[in-house]
Amino acid sequence: MPTRRQCANAIRVLAMDAIEKAQSGHPGAPLGMADMAEALWRHVLKHNPANPHWFDRDRFVLSNGHASMLLYALLHLTGYGLTMDEVRNFRQWGTRTPGHPERNPDLGIEMTTGPLGQGIASAVGMALAERMLAARFNTSEYSIVDHRTWVFLGDGCLMEGVCHEACSLAGTWRLGKLNALYDANGISIDGKVDNWFTEDVAARFRAYGWQVIGPVDGHDYAALDAALAEAKKDTIHPGLIICRTHIGFASPQADSAACHGAPLGKENIAATRKALGWCDPPFTIPEDILVAWDARVQGQAAEDAWQNVFDAYAAAYPDKAAEFSRRMRGDLPEDWADITKVMLDDAVSAGENIATRVASRKALECLVSHLPELVGGAADLTGSVGTCTSASTPLDVAAYTGNYVYYGVREFAMSAVMNGLALHGGFIPYAGTFLSFADQAKNALRLAALMHIRAVWVMTHDSIGVGEDGPTHQPVEQLGMLRLTPDIHVWRPCDGVETAVAWRCALESATAPTVLSLSRQKTVFCARNPQQIRDIARGGYILHACEGTPDIILIATGSEVGLALEAAKALTQQGRKARVVSMPCTSVFDAQDAAWREHVLPSAVRVRMAIEASAADWWRKYVGLDGEVLGMVGFGASAPGKVVFEKFGFTVTHVLELAEHMFNKLGL
Amino acid sequence: MPTRRQCANAIRVLAMDAIEKAQSGHPGAPLGMADMAEALWRHVLKHNPANPHWFDRDRFVLSNGHASMLLYALLHLTGYGLTMDEVRNFRQWGTRTPGHPERNPDLGIEMTTGPLGQGIASAVGMALAERMLAARFNTSEYSIVDHRTWVFLGDGCLMEGVCHEACSLAGTWRLGKLNALYDANGISIDGKVDNWFTEDVAARFRAYGWQVIGPVDGHDYAALDAALAEAKKDTIHPGLIICRTHIGFASPQADSAACHGAPLGKENIAATRKALGWCDPPFTIPEDILVAWDARVQGQAAEDAWQNVFDAYAAAYPDKAAEFSRRMRGDLPEDWADITKVMLDDAVSAGENIATRVASRKALECLVSHLPELVGGAADLTGSVGTCTSASTPLDVAAYTGNYVYYGVREFAMSAVMNGLALHGGFIPYAGTFLSFADQAKNALRLAALMHIRAVWVMTHDSIGVGEDGPTHQPVEQLGMLRLTPDIHVWRPCDGVETAVAWRCALESATAPTVLSLSRQKTVFCARNPQQIRDIARGGYILHACEGTPDIILIATGSEVGLALEAAKALTQQGRKARVVSMPCTSVFDAQDAAWREHVLPSAVRVRMAIEASAADWWRKYVGLDGEVLGMVGFGASAPGKVVFEKFGFTVTHVLELAEHMFNKLGL
Repeated sequence: MPTRRQCANAIRVLAMDAIEKAQSGHPGAPLGMADMAEALWRHVLKHNPANPHWFDRDRFVLSNGHASMLLYALLHLTGYGLTMDEVRNFRQWGTRTPGHPERNPDLGIEMTTGPLGQGIASAVGMALAERMLAARFNTSEYSIVDHRTWVFLGDGCLMEGVCHEACSLAGTWRLGKLNALYDANGISIDGKVDNWFTEDVAARFRAYGWQVIGPVDGHDYAALDAALAEAKKDTIHPGLIICRTHIGFASPQADSAACHGAPLGKENIAATRKALGWCDPPFTIPEDILVAWDARVQGQAAEDAWQNVFDAYAAAYPDKAAEFSRRMRGDLPEDWADITKVMLDDAVSAGENIATRVASRKALECLVSHLPELVGGAADLTGSVGTCTSASTPLDVAAYTGNYVYYGVREFAMSAVMNGLALHGGFIPYAGTFLSFADQAKNALRLAALMHIRAVWVMTHDSIGVGEDGPTHQPVEQLGMLRLTPDIHVWRPCDGVETAVAWRCALESATAPTVLSLSRQKTVFCARNPQQIRDIARGGYILHACEGTPDIILIATGSEVGLALEAAKALTQQGRKARVVSMPCTSVFDAQDAAWREHVLPSAVRVRMAIEASAADWWRKYVGLDGEVLGMVGFGASAPGKVVFEKFGFTVTHVLELAEHMFNKLGL
Repeated sequence: MPTRRQCANAIRVLAMDAIEKAQSGHPGAPLGMADMAEALWRHVLKHNPANPHWFDRDRFVLSNGHASMLLYALLHLTGYGLTMDEVRNFRQWGTRTPGHPERNPDLGIEMTTGPLGQGIASAVGMALAERMLAARFNTSEYSIVDHRTWVFLGDGCLMEGVCHEACSLAGTWRLGKLNALYDANGISIDGKVDNWFTEDVAARFRAYGWQVIGPVDGHDYAALDAALAEAKKDTIHPGLIICRTHIGFASPQADSAACHGAPLGKENIAATRKALGWCDPPFTIPEDILVAWDARVQGQAAEDAWQNVFDAYAAAYPDKAAEFSRRMRGDLPEDWADITKVMLDDAVSAGENIATRVASRKALECLVSHLPELVGGAADLTGSVGTCTSASTPLDVAAYTGNYVYYGVREFAMSAVMNGLALHGGFIPYAGTFLSFADQAKNALRLAALMHIRAVWVMTHDSIGVGEDGPTHQPVEQLGMLRLTPDIHVWRPCDGVETAVAWRCALESATAPTVLSLSRQKTVFCARNPQQIRDIARGGYILHACEGTPDIILIATGSEVGLALEAAKALTQQGRKARVVSMPCTSVFDAQDAAWREHVLPSAVRVRMAIEASAADWWRKYVGLDGEVLGMVGFGASAPGKVVFEKFGFTVTHVLELAEHMFNKLGL
């Protein structure tokens, strides 16, 4: 029977050898955290390596994702399907062992980490999901939802602002089943942290309402066991266990930044092997250590026990069990088609000139009342963004009832928590803020895209139409920023009907996040025939047709579609054949077949004008060198919205001038 | 002689009346903070309304910028040149009283605020600048730099992550002359904060190493005076004065979110007037109150006293005084042309194939040794981003010596602090992180652009060339995101020579921030004639020419220029006339006259290909509908950089294929 230290050392050698082979990676953290990992993963963590999809597993998040080899070593050793070949091919093309962990539900990687602080922030969302789901599905006899969320994090995570935002919320939400182990090694990339990280972390977390344990010696198993036990006992306060560790433990570079982000090198590895008393060659783990780590038998037993409970639950509460299973699968309700038909019909028949943020609230009225998996919220702009419906009730942390979360002024944490809610399963998060504050949330949206998460960001006040609040609150470049981010769908609907379709598409987008860009101000209702209504879901379609080949195509989105329609009328009066294309979602339009794209935007028609009150350059994609863009080339300004639009040239007169300019330039 | 409350009430009525007239704005905070403002501005703040440019004034930052009418009222009442007409035209087109304060040095508005948390974060930078400048210029006899930084902030600021990052640094940096007055009214837009903001703010700030005073009654002048005096006494710990206030003080909507962001309405205003005992009509302030507020005489006296000290200083230390004045004006050194000539000549004669991040460090070696105003730093990536030179010494808070700041893993606060350093004057900040983490800093960069700040962001590892660290660390959309942001110059140099020019342009850009996008991996040195070297500063120029009109133009930036040159060679061998345009800075290129743009990119040549390992769509601006973009359409992947480039098609073969495709399509 190997010692616990020998078990931990298996992580250490795998990490340093794989990093050496790749000639790239971060050995310091895996060497430092190996004992913490042994204490958690071999003795406390509830999981079944044979089935990474087991719903009631504990969630584990490696917030300091650069320690990826720690996780890969654990997945390999405990019996997940990660082979030694994959460990050996760490950081190579096409492997499941990339430089930073990438979400892989089949392998047991809960989320993508690397950008520091976001692991812990999304873990807060996972822990919240667990409590909310337990409140909805557990009964007095059956606890089918009962697991913990464990996080490893380092100094870097604690310095990042998103960690502050999320951990403050975790305290408020009393997430006692969330526990973070802080790898307090006192070293970051630039060296000893004394000159840039002097805060009293324990006091700070107590101020958030956390239980703080330690500092304990992160290499002392008894101390770690005791700390973990103490953490588990407190189910009201989230727990932070401060573990004092030595980065690069046992290596000649221990306690120095030198081992943070570069391979140790042959000599140091040899010296570390000696210090660890490890005699085996690289990528060879002694059988007894492999046996000691293998968690499949006990994992399967744990899952089997849970399955028995769940089966009994299903027998007693077949409807609840079916609903639970549906939500875990992420399927939309069976009557989804009916629900969305009602939502869309309502929007069509209302025929209102309303702000799309209001149209969104109306769509949500229908959706929230029918989809219990929706968890709404806002970053302290509830009334403005219209995310709270009559079917919404605030999260109440006494019982974890409610389906609406007040995130406070924390756009970044809100978004990372949304990611965590979605990753956990059982919920589809949506929440709102102003589009200009997409900036603060940006990297969480990027991670949502990288992780193929279904979540909906309701981003309102989406142009200079914001008016008086001025340039800090008027987005200009944000639409382009989000559209350029791969695998995010950005919908900018032009009226209530497009808004309803956008919501439907957003919720049907099971593997990509959606941003809804919505107006503060009223938009013009557009009449459409049934085919046009169906075409909205293609991302771009002909909203206003003309006879034959158009002389000019106006492409517009959102609140500027009304202007395009008015301008088209004026152009028609001038004897020009003008088509208006509404383009609510460019990524969806781009994914249509070539025939559709050619149908909407015939290659031969080069007299094209894009009209959108956001950064103009992005639209060159559709209008090319010959076209014109009526967009923004600078920041907005503070004044009533209508005045701002006029001053920046969003008028029929200006559209006609630009059109004339194009016709002249092309000799038409 | 009016009472202090009457003086404060002048702010209240101006605020509620101006907001009512605009039918837009945030009355709650000005009404709540008016007494705090009276205590600070009438009794403590060192300023001269007759000269907002007086260097040694205290800095005042309204971090909760939605309370803008508080600031406008103060500027009007104390004697800055803000007229009652301007107050009356609050939030109207073209006025100096926009919805949120916009930096206006001529008017006494130190910075643009609105995005919560960034005011306090930049104030940390201002306070650091004061200490560092004092250390450099004060002598034992003469204190020419000796002022405080005052901040008003609210619950929202404290929830935002950037506040955590910056305030932790302020504690570490022992910025005792920074003092924040916290408007603790317990209300944010969504209502009473009890459900989303429960942390113990006092304990949290003590954990950062701050002095925490209060809570005091924010409407009790004696308590406020005492708190301000106590705060001033402690010159080692930054101070947080917690002021319990009533939002919408004296209005029927006091203590409710209803008064946060909407005009009070006629009836409520009448009731508030009555409660305040205010009988005058809107926009009319009784003469005695105006006299009581007018701070011009005492302000001029304070400035005169300082001027006397400065004159004596200048007599005793003429060189120091001249240098101080130069730095305050923001002029570059007299020998700037010589310095940059050396820097550029070195890069040309070195002729090395080096990573542009290394080229940047070489340029900095020259610049930092000659420009004492440069304050460098990094977000815990010093070695990687190359911002620390042999002339750099770390900030030492015992004496505020040093010119290099270790910001820790805090990209957002780093950027906001850089803004503060620049706003204060006397410094030009530059600092680095990875380009993918521009996300976290984004809104601070936006504010830098809005405020016309000179600062340089050194953003390295600027593409999939990052390699093994994988997609979380490989920027894709970030270049587009930054280029679409108005008034930021993004330079992506292709070799050491372009890097040197980029640095020169960045430092000469006195009214716009610069982002340098730099490679992790080696780039290919390009030979240029003297005219070409001069042309780099035009943002885009012909790097490789062909005879006559080109058959094809390859437009490339940064590390992909080498590929473009190779491909051009191959195209030439195929009998095609190929031009290579290097486009290191698109915004600068766009600002050139039409003749230059036509010279570089003749309209008639439509066979154009842009080559850049970042989001492809952005480049449609230059290649139009007929051209091709060899860029990224998805996220990157973890593998050695060369492998990643090859897998994503950045090869000569692929360029030739795309070129062939274009020639075929256009029948050439």
